[in-house]
Amino acid sequence: MKTRDKIVQASLELFNKHGERNISTNHIAAHLNMSPGNLYYHFRNKEDIIRSIFTLYESDIIRDFKPYLDQEVNSELLLNYFDTLFNILWNYRFLYNNLADILSRDDVLKVRYRQTQEQVLSRSNYIIAQLKDDGVLIIDENDIAPLADTLKLMTSFWVSYKLTQSKSPIGSISKASLYEGVLRVLLILKTYAAPNSITTFDKLKTHYQKQADSSLQSDEQIEE
Amino acid sequence: MKTRDKIVQASLELFNKHGERNISTNHIAAHLNMSPGNLYYHFRNKEDIIRSIFTLYESDIIRDFKPYLDQEVNSELLLNYFDTLFNILWNYRFLYNNLADILSRDDVLKVRYRQTQEQVLSRSNYIIAQLKDDGVLIIDENDIAPLADTLKLMTSFWVSYKLTQSKSPIGSISKASLYEGVLRVLLILKTYAAPNSITTFDKLKTHYQKQADSSLQSDEQIEE
Repeated sequence: MKTRDKIVQASLELFNKHGERNISTNHIAAHLNMSPGNLYYHFRNKEDIIRSIFTLYESDIIRDFKPYLDQEVNSELLLNYFDTLFNILWNYRFLYNNLADILSRDDVLKVRYRQTQEQVLSRSNYIIAQLKDDGVLIIDENDIAPLADTLKLMTSFWVSYKLTQSKSPIGSISKASLYEGVLRVLLILKTYAAPNSITTFDKLKTHYQKQADSSLQSDEQIEE
Repeated sequence: MKTRDKIVQASLELFNKHGERNISTNHIAAHLNMSPGNLYYHFRNKEDIIRSIFTLYESDIIRDFKPYLDQEVNSELLLNYFDTLFNILWNYRFLYNNLADILSRDDVLKVRYRQTQEQVLSRSNYIIAQLKDDGVLIIDENDIAPLADTLKLMTSFWVSYKLTQSKSPIGSISKASLYEGVLRVLLILKTYAAPNSITTFDKLKTHYQKQADSSLQSDEQIEE
């Protein structure tokens, strides 16, 4: 792995574990047994590293979250979407924690964030319309855009929400609480489920409930 | 009005207009034609002022958002709840902008916030259960708590969400965009509406749509 990529990966890991606010470029350099000077050879400052992490975030989303092609809509297809949601939330959780704060410090990043979110929203609209056409959801044409936007709000602020409601710092965001976020999106979507797709939604619910329960157990084991 | 209350009111106004981050105690003193020393006689620092604003926020919520008594559920009763939601969001919008940031700076405030939110959540659960008992909503007993929690998430982060999605600073949060938040809560609640209460929800939707449209017009007039 190139030094540049090593720095990005280590920063992502440290930010997720301790919160971006608590990690300086010196911490990152020390973690990599690297001199601060060497780090500054690759990145001007922390904002510069955050922008590189954001590039990974963008490409993960663009690669994994897109309309489906001609294929049957079954629980496996939907599972892929929800797994993508979980993975993005988990892998970039520091970004979701205190999103407004990170964006307010970097106007360039704010513009990039807005562009990515517009793309997410437009794809999300498209997928909901596909699910309506394929008879999975029953939804008024006019409600598609606000539903897509509501789901984006819920997922964008789930991590912040869990953290403001708890005593805990970012390191304590558990996989279980992110699976809870996935279950919440399912709950809202299910209110639009066509009668013959209710069982599909119930199957997904059972699946993610199990994921949440088993992460809870492994989270507890880590604490021991 | 007592000097102490004047300081709290002026701070609230300035925070809402320019963002809490951009306003110092010196700005507040200057706005009131007061010496910084006089302000420090009443408040130790900005955090101390924010705590006093938070006391107003808490008492507004506790006073206006509570289960209804023996009365018919009609659009007027529901209107009161949604008007309360709008007023709280509007009057304390600086608090909703960058909530995580404000709470992360003050552990005492974070504990108070959590307590208020627990009370809001428990009342919200109770009201949804009342609406279910009165035949207004059709909802599975097990879905009441996650629905209440989802609505809380949506309302807590609506302001942050609108600001991260736009180019604009906090001063530009318009009444129209907060009415849009109210409409969004209505949309989610309506998916649980009993057949004979759909017209009530539609009436509320028309009402808040009008409010949004007319605020949009007056927002535009202000800009001219």
